[in-house]
Formats: sequence, structure tokens, C-alpha cells
Amino acid sequence: MGMAPEEAPRVAPVRPGPSLEVVALLGIPEVRPGDDLDALLLDALAATPGVLPLRDGDVLVVTQKVVSKAEGAIVDLEGIEPRPEAVEFANAADRDPRQVEVVLREARRVVRMEKGVLITETPHGFICANGGVDASNVGPHSGSVVTLLPVDPDASAARMRAAIRARHGVDVPVVISDSFGRPWRWGIVDVAIGVSGLLPIENLRGSPDRDGRIMKSTVRAVADELASAAELALGKTAGRPAALIRGAAFTRGDGAIRDALMPAAWDLFR
Amino acid sequence: MGMAPEEAPRVAPVRPGPSLEVVALLGIPEVRPGDDLDALLLDALAATPGVLPLRDGDVLVVTQKVVSKAEGAIVDLEGIEPRPEAVEFANAADRDPRQVEVVLREARRVVRMEKGVLITETPHGFICANGGVDASNVGPHSGSVVTLLPVDPDASAARMRAAIRARHGVDVPVVISDSFGRPWRWGIVDVAIGVSGLLPIENLRGSPDRDGRIMKSTVRAVADELASAAELALGKTAGRPAALIRGAAFTRGDGAIRDALMPAAWDLFR
Repeated sequence: MGMAPEEAPRVAPVRPGPSLEVVALLGIPEVRPGDDLDALLLDALAATPGVLPLRDGDVLVVTQKVVSKAEGAIVDLEGIEPRPEAVEFANAADRDPRQVEVVLREARRVVRMEKGVLITETPHGFICANGGVDASNVGPHSGSVVTLLPVDPDASAARMRAAIRARHGVDVPVVISDSFGRPWRWGIVDVAIGVSGLLPIENLRGSPDRDGRIMKSTVRAVADELASAAELALGKTAGRPAALIRGAAFTRGDGAIRDALMPAAWDLFR
Repeated sequence: MGMAPEEAPRVAPVRPGPSLEVVALLGIPEVRPGDDLDALLLDALAATPGVLPLRDGDVLVVTQKVVSKAEGAIVDLEGIEPRPEAVEFANAADRDPRQVEVVLREARRVVRMEKGVLITETPHGFICANGGVDASNVGPHSGSVVTLLPVDPDASAARMRAAIRARHGVDVPVVISDSFGRPWRWGIVDVAIGVSGLLPIENLRGSPDRDGRIMKSTVRAVADELASAAELALGKTAGRPAALIRGAAFTRGDGAIRDALMPAAWDLFR
């Protein structure tokens, strides 16, 4: 809570401008396993008015669902045999026991499994409801298919960033986002689950504030805020899975999403 | 985590447009106790290029620090006598025992007080580090002054909204924001601590997703995302305490920040 990783890089921020713009990309079709998502995103960048030419300081935010679908990170519940623990929990919570089984199979650790809420730690280290396994907006005629989290969201982001640079010659950092709940507050906000080309955590510790007072513990979770800003333009139901953010204050660097995760030793809510 | 309040109002969203803009307001001076913050904000709206005329769907985000300062929600640590528990905790954590004392006095409940981290529940029901008590960016020559959270941030937001409506004839919802840490993830993100004129939580439960599948548990924490989007334009050190957001997908309504807080009965991380 508000403390800094010790070794966060210190780099000059990119364009800490007084305004930013979030543009939902248009024309991305229903994504299916095996689709070339990079090509679809490049087409969407070209199809969305006002986006090209890309500018220094642009960031692309892509929501998890299309990444998982393109990469085939999906499971058909038809073939899943739930363990008794999954059946018991699911029946009490009016949920699909097969989906609970998938969550448990994907989990590195169960954090909470009570009151109808299943919170697990994923192999990536994310702690979230249902381990990121999700049935909504999977696609028409998808029946019992659910999406898993991408295996390596940083790699997904790096691939998209490379594709954009190859086409446009501009280094556009990429954030992969997903919707997470939080303890103590209702509702979900989009946060980052993968990054490439920016520091997800910007450490202002040791910087002076405007009064010259040294800030002891200001660590901006910039990638999470980028994900949340994108959601405000994308919404949840409209089939808009990606947004370009222009003008945000962030710091370039060789960041990884693990930089955004609190080490177990610091975590008071394991 | 991802479940819905039972009685969230259902209203048509305002302009779920494909793009939004976040503009940091210019010209807000150092705010001092007793300042007319509403007047300062009205001046800043007029002074910032591209903001006027205000439009239907605009939202104003104002950061906590200037609200607290204008309302006199500040304490000079000079007169504070810390209790032994505060001294012991502060000495172990290299912190000011008087500030710890203020946090404890403000707290309804101590959630965690270990490893140098003090997390309390405030009288508003927020669970956050140091109960929102903060020493950074308080002002020049402020010495040992810290800010507390505003006493009633919804009322602060309502007052600003009324001032804007009186001047411009446009109903601009207002969000008061503050920087909170989160369990499991590094860094802070700006969230809402007060609202007026919008629903902080937008309940999509029962709405069909794009495939016609009923979404069981999609509850957007819109006010928190508005706060985070504003932070991307404002940053932490630049003396920019307010932003106008234009084009975000949100729902008008008679919301209160308590709608955004998870009831104790649902909370697995008390």
C-alpha cells in the first residue's frame, strides 16, 4: 500500500501534457482462435478517424478477451469433469461447476473460496476473481466456451508493439487490460495484465513535490490507470476491444507486468 | 469482487461515445484554507482553452488535496501528542509519530498496522493507507501541516456541481478523487471519494452482452475509472488539481460514494 519497489528505473516522463485523448478503435470484427490480431489492430488503427499518423507518446490498450481468443486461450466446458469441491461450491453459488473446475486448474493458489466468491492467484501472479476465467462476450454460438488469461500477456503486448513499429516506424507502448474487482469497493475497474514499452509503475519516491518536500511514497500505477481510462471509451458490451491513448503522462522503459505485482513479503492480504 | 449491489438504479448511459478527452484545468493557484474553491474552479474552466462551452456529458474531477485545504480539513502536527502505540509504530517505520496519531484519531477502525503500513477505515467507510492523511503538496511554508479527507466529499462535489450549473446552465457531474493503494498490486491509482450527479457504480447485471448472453456480474466502477483517467493528465507534482473529462461513458443519477463501498457482509478482506 503506497510503498515503492526498491529498484524502479528513473527515466524522464514522456509528454506530461495537460490533456489526453482516448479513442476507441473501430472495425475490429469478432475475433476467433488463430486470427492474426496484430493485423486486425493495424487495420483498426488505419480505419479509425484521427488516429494516424501515430505520435510519440501514443499508447495502445487492448482488452484481454480478444487476446485470449486470438491466441486460443479458451476452454470448452463440455469436456470438463469438475471435482467434488468445485461442484459443492458451484451449487451453493448458482454457478457452473465446470467453470469453477477450470479456475481451480488454472490457479497457483486459492486466496478465498467462500460466499460465492472465488479468488485465486494465477500463474502470472495476478490475484483476481475466478482467475480471469470468463464466459461473457466469448462469441456467438460459442456455447460453453470460456476464455483463460493469455499465457504471457507481456509477450502478447510486445508482439503488437513490434507489429506497429514495423508498419508505422513509431514505438507505441502496449497495455493488455482486464477487468478486476478490488477488496473494499464495489465493481470492477480495468487494470493492466501485460505491458510492453513502458514502466507500469512510476516511482516518484525521492522526487520533490511542488513545495520541494521529498515525496516518500508516491508510486503511480500508470499502466492500471491507462487501462481504466481506455475502459471509459470502450465500455463493456459494445464490441470495442482496443483504444489508443494520446497524451498521457507515462515513462518509457523496459517494463514487465510483474513490476506491478506486490511481492508476497509486503502483502498484508494474502 | 465483481458482484452487484442489489438495488442499483438502471438509467440510460450518457453518450457512450467512442472517444473521450481529459483536459487538466489551468490557472488554479495554491489553495489555502477559506479559499472559495468553487470560484477558483469556475475561473479555471474559463481559463483553459477548449473547455467552454461546457457540454452535456462533461464530468469534472477534483483532487482531494485542494478540497481539504479549501475546507480547512488540515491539522498542524505541532500540537499533536502521540500515544505510545503511535510512537512505537512510527519509530519502527521511520515515520512521524504525530502523523500516525492523527491517522488513529481519524480512524473508525484499524484494518492493518504492521510492516510500516497503517491501513484504517475512515468515518466515510473508505479503507486506505493512513486514512487519507497526507503531508505531500500541502503548500509552501506549511511546515508540519497535514491534510485530512474532506468531511463529506459528496457534499463538496454537490456544491461544485451547483456552482457550475448556476454559472453555465449545464449539469456537470463532479468526482472528488484521491490516490489509494490496493492489495496485491504496487502503486497507487486515483479513485473516487465523493460524487455528485452520476452513479459511481454502473450495474450491467442482467444486460445482454454482444452475443445476447446475460452478464451476471458486470458492475463498472465508473467513478473510480474517471478519477484514474484524470490522474493521467494531472500527474502528481505539477500543481494541477482538477480535470474536465469529455465524452466518457457514464450514467447520470443521484449517486453517493457509499454506493461504491463494499458492505462489510460481502467483504472477505476486513
